[in-house]
Amino acid sequence: MKQINVGIVGYGVVGNGVARILEEKKELLIKKSGIQINLKKVFTRNWNKSFPYPLPEEKKAYSLEEITEDKDIDIVVELTGGIEFPYNLITECIKKGKHVVTANKALLAEKGKDVFLLAEEKGIRIGFEAAVAGGIPIIRALREGLVANSIERIYGILNGTTNYILTKMLKEKKDFNSVLKEAQELGYAEADPTLDINGTDAAHKIAILASLSYGGFIDFSGIYVEGIEKVNNLDISLGRELGYTLKLLAIAKSHNGEIEVRVHPTFLPSEHPLAKVDGVYNAVMVEGDSVGETMFYGKGAGSLPTASSVISDIVDIGKSIALGVGREIEVTSMNWEHKDLSLTKVSDFYTRYYLRFTVPDVTGVLARVAAVFAKYSISIAAVIQKEKVLSFTGEKKEKVVPLVILTHTASENNIQKAIKEIEQEKITVEKTVLIRVEDEEI
Amino acid sequence: MKQINVGIVGYGVVGNGVARILEEKKELLIKKSGIQINLKKVFTRNWNKSFPYPLPEEKKAYSLEEITEDKDIDIVVELTGGIEFPYNLITECIKKGKHVVTANKALLAEKGKDVFLLAEEKGIRIGFEAAVAGGIPIIRALREGLVANSIERIYGILNGTTNYILTKMLKEKKDFNSVLKEAQELGYAEADPTLDINGTDAAHKIAILASLSYGGFIDFSGIYVEGIEKVNNLDISLGRELGYTLKLLAIAKSHNGEIEVRVHPTFLPSEHPLAKVDGVYNAVMVEGDSVGETMFYGKGAGSLPTASSVISDIVDIGKSIALGVGREIEVTSMNWEHKDLSLTKVSDFYTRYYLRFTVPDVTGVLARVAAVFAKYSISIAAVIQKEKVLSFTGEKKEKVVPLVILTHTASENNIQKAIKEIEQEKITVEKTVLIRVEDEEI
Ligand SMILES: NC(=O)c1ccc[n+]([C@@H]2O[C@H](COP(=O)([O-])OP(=O)(O)OC[C@H]3O[C@@H](n4cnc5c(N)ncnc54)[C@H](OP(=O)(O)O)[C@@H]3O)[C@@H](O)[C@H]2O)c1
Ligand SMILES: NC(=O)c1ccc[n+]([C@@H]2O[C@H](COP(=O)([O-])OP(=O)(O)OC[C@H]3O[C@@H](n4cnc5c(N)ncnc54)[C@H](OP(=O)(O)O)[C@@H]3O)[C@@H](O)[C@H]2O)c1
Repeated sequence: MKQINVGIVGYGVVGNGVARILEEKKELLIKKSGIQINLKKVFTRNWNKSFPYPLPEEKKAYSLEEITEDKDIDIVVELTGGIEFPYNLITECIKKGKHVVTANKALLAEKGKDVFLLAEEKGIRIGFEAAVAGGIPIIRALREGLVANSIERIYGILNGTTNYILTKMLKEKKDFNSVLKEAQELGYAEADPTLDINGTDAAHKIAILASLSYGGFIDFSGIYVEGIEKVNNLDISLGRELGYTLKLLAIAKSHNGEIEVRVHPTFLPSEHPLAKVDGVYNAVMVEGDSVGETMFYGKGAGSLPTASSVISDIVDIGKSIALGVGREIEVTSMNWEHKDLSLTKVSDFYTRYYLRFTVPDVTGVLARVAAVFAKYSISIAAVIQKEKVLSFTGEKKEKVVPLVILTHTASENNIQKAIKEIEQEKITVEKTVLIRVEDEEI
Repeated sequence: MKQINVGIVGYGVVGNGVARILEEKKELLIKKSGIQINLKKVFTRNWNKSFPYPLPEEKKAYSLEEITEDKDIDIVVELTGGIEFPYNLITECIKKGKHVVTANKALLAEKGKDVFLLAEEKGIRIGFEAAVAGGIPIIRALREGLVANSIERIYGILNGTTNYILTKMLKEKKDFNSVLKEAQELGYAEADPTLDINGTDAAHKIAILASLSYGGFIDFSGIYVEGIEKVNNLDISLGRELGYTLKLLAIAKSHNGEIEVRVHPTFLPSEHPLAKVDGVYNAVMVEGDSVGETMFYGKGAGSLPTASSVISDIVDIGKSIALGVGREIEVTSMNWEHKDLSLTKVSDFYTRYYLRFTVPDVTGVLARVAAVFAKYSISIAAVIQKEKVLSFTGEKKEKVVPLVILTHTASENNIQKAIKEIEQEKITVEKTVLIRVEDEEI
């Protein structure tokens, strides 16, 4: 039986899970795959601490070269994090003819083009199932299971921390800061949760999914990203009244030869399958022209779920190595269209909107707002005007109330112009809240 | 570029979808897979009718031999249905060195062992992604994506027709027969829906999933199967009151070295993700020891969704052929444990139960029922005794009412004994309704 040697770099949350499964499930993996996977060495920069899955001395590497220079190691598993260090490591491995498995979405989203083109040139495979949606085998599904489909839209909940926070805000009516604090105490949010909260992590993942779906490279800096920092309980509950649930959604769709990729707090119809995905779970909805709607749901993070995906890549690449697969037609990159994809500009987004204006409770306000909407050809689907007094304004101390308008599909450009005009005309007394609504109209 | 020649046998709902996608998406498939798939010939027994995707004359075969004897055809796609004919066809193809793709769950569930062992012997691959849950890539997920997992439980909604009927019964409070008739008129149920309604179709599919999950062969005749023919609106609504939704669930789990496989109407907690899968959609929940809970959701049938999966197999096998993959380690069968799996006997099922007794509305009835339960060590979780009068009984014309008991986990053996004793003691006036509840207690 062919033995495949694996080296791991980075021994943290995911690394420990991978080592544990490779050791504890050796026999199962042999039975299922027909190959023997041998964890040869692990390198991490500091062995002087305790690990959830402690390793015997002979598996510990004390320099990176023990991995990269070892001719017996077939596959290097990069589990460090960040961009600079893993980029150098991975490109070095590719040049040395070692296949690579990584869970590093930041690297692939921001430097994927370099990595994949180099890998393609050298006939090297890059496994990255774990980089998106942890344990959910979504990369494989897109690449193989749904190969017969043109992807019309792919969107989902790709960050567990923010989904946990939004779920708690909805169910317990607590505000953002107190839920975030709670999540950190419970270990559902990192000490520095910035990349989760501000949407960057979800953007990294949707960049990868969009690349794969549309077969080209995406300029990460061109993706529109908005986090959940400013999400307000008032909007969560007003949206609920209109039949919508707030989620941090990552969305990619194709139209007119452009790819629209965006991450932002989004209202989904409460009956939508993604609206029911609660807590730390992730889910990805894929709409293909043949298959229709499919959804993939599971744990998007955590040591063993993520390791489960890392190992699926090791097995897959290991089998290819054992079979002596030639390099000529293996698609190693996401670049099956062999081009850069062009991204839709924000001003060209075309979707539905929830707008909350903060207005004095006087007659004529709705009429004035509606007039501006009409001017920009924005069609109104629903209005909620609330008794709820937020504050008082002006000399006469008039009540200030929320005025919520749900639009039909409109262009972002027109929406922004309308908001600007309404604010300039001082119809509102506070900044307007804009939340996009994902609810295709037929 | 390597060209892979495909022959299709059977040109109905799925066959037309496959031909359409192969022709219309030729370019996309080349880009994504690096191979060129050529639909060489299609055989069906009667070309004298109209087809949704009409074929040019040169693609039509008028005898089976035009496919089976054509040395250029690499992959034969079996899309006829039934068992006898496709069994002979597939074994012939295997012997002739042709790889096979099929959507035929009946064949694989009932004759899979013969087919897979022969294929393994001959080094032939059998693709069957489309046989379970239509367009959902669940076979690939189990085989590859979740390879690092021991599967603790796999269960789901695997038949769209029955899920459509149960959804309608719940939402519109209509009875089984009228909803079935409606479903037939709308084309959601076949003219002869027997195999759907009586659970056989779902049983075929869970047999395949269980084989794959536990790595051996399953004696199909040993699977416990109950259909939805006798499902009653009263139970749907009483279950709802207790917080449960009724679904036709197909379940496989492993314990004590045995595999428990069963299909029956099942109450699921209404908050469970599967409880929210409505209409003709399918969904499969997989619990792996590493990944935790994952769910796969999508269309379980229909021409293009099913064809989407058929084509994923053609591409996958086509790529292997093009790469000149050796035969030594490709796992061609589901038999990675190399054994027959032993099935748990019905009497050894261990689950929760919903029991509806039909009893006269007199004092002491609940006490008598509870006494029998205690005797068989069955612990009661909840009771609903209803004012609702079903009929009248006895000389005194006493009111007859439903008495519903939800148990904690109990053995089927004890439950059956308790019901028998309660009925023999004539505490009840009608046959007791038993519905199993899938709600793991910790
Ligand atoms: N955690 C998850 O659930 C999850 C899910 C999906 C994807 N990922 C991705 O998986 C990767 C690893 O995540 P993680 O959660 O396992 O991170 P982690 O717990 O912080 O572990 C990172 C490990 O890499 C080591 N390391 C960092 N820089 C190094 C360097 N320059 N040289 C040698 N070792 C270095 C760290 O050592 P020190 O301990 O000395 O810092 C630590 O052992 C990241 O790319 C992450 O985005 C994680
Ligand atoms: N339909 C779905 O959504 C779906 C989903 C998943 C799996 N499947 C499976 O896919 C297979 C095909 O289903 P389908 O819905 O496409 O069935 P279908 O519409 O009834 O088509 C079957 C085709 O096979 C032909 N055929 C039957 N017996 C034949 C024979 N002995 N020789 C030559 N041709 C023969 C039929 O010809 P005639 O028209 O002359 O009878 C017809 O063209 C079945 O195994 C089914 O269980 C179907």
